[in-house]
Amino acid sequence: MSERLSEETRGPLLDPLLANGWTMVQGRDAITKTYSFDTFVDAIGWMMRVAIWAEKWNHHPEWSNVYGKVDVVLTTHDVGGLSSLDAKLARKMDSLC
Amino acid sequence: MSERLSEETRGPLLDPLLANGWTMVQGRDAITKTYSFDTFVDAIGWMMRVAIWAEKWNHHPEWSNVYGKVDVVLTTHDVGGLSSLDAKLARKMDSLC
Repeated sequence: MSERLSEETRGPLLDPLLANGWTMVQGRDAITKTYSFDTFVDAIGWMMRVAIWAEKWNHHPEWSNVYGKVDVVLTTHDVGGLSSLDAKLARKMDSLC
Repeated sequence: MSERLSEETRGPLLDPLLANGWTMVQGRDAITKTYSFDTFVDAIGWMMRVAIWAEKWNHHPEWSNVYGKVDVVLTTHDVGGLSSLDAKLARKMDSLC
């Protein structure tokens, strides 16, 4: 079971992401990033690769797509905020670009 | 090249969709529908099938996904509103459920 990030764990897990294009969502304990791809096929292909990891880890993003753009929001509904799973999925998303 | 739906073509193309869960978007010449699937895999699998047709027809949706829910908006940016391509893609989306 995942737990909400504590003050101690928050910095080490989130700071590298915040330095890599992720930002905090206003009014929510969640992180967001916009990915831009050259084509729709590139965007959907990336979403499919991410989806397999999301399902494998049973941790799913909120995301939207318009042509080559994908907006992602990550949070952990079960704990009402960010958990280590969000950081893990964010790192995977970055690595799959 | 696609053209914006005329008064004459609008009813015959849109009425069957509006009777099948599609609604007009407030303030835009666009149609929207929310699809609900039992699982994330069902939702993403459907999105992938739709994506292949969207790319084949070079006509792409605005869509967002959270777990088993997919919100879709269709319009034709090139013509500033709805075209027959939107009706075609909407029918395909419904048929792929």
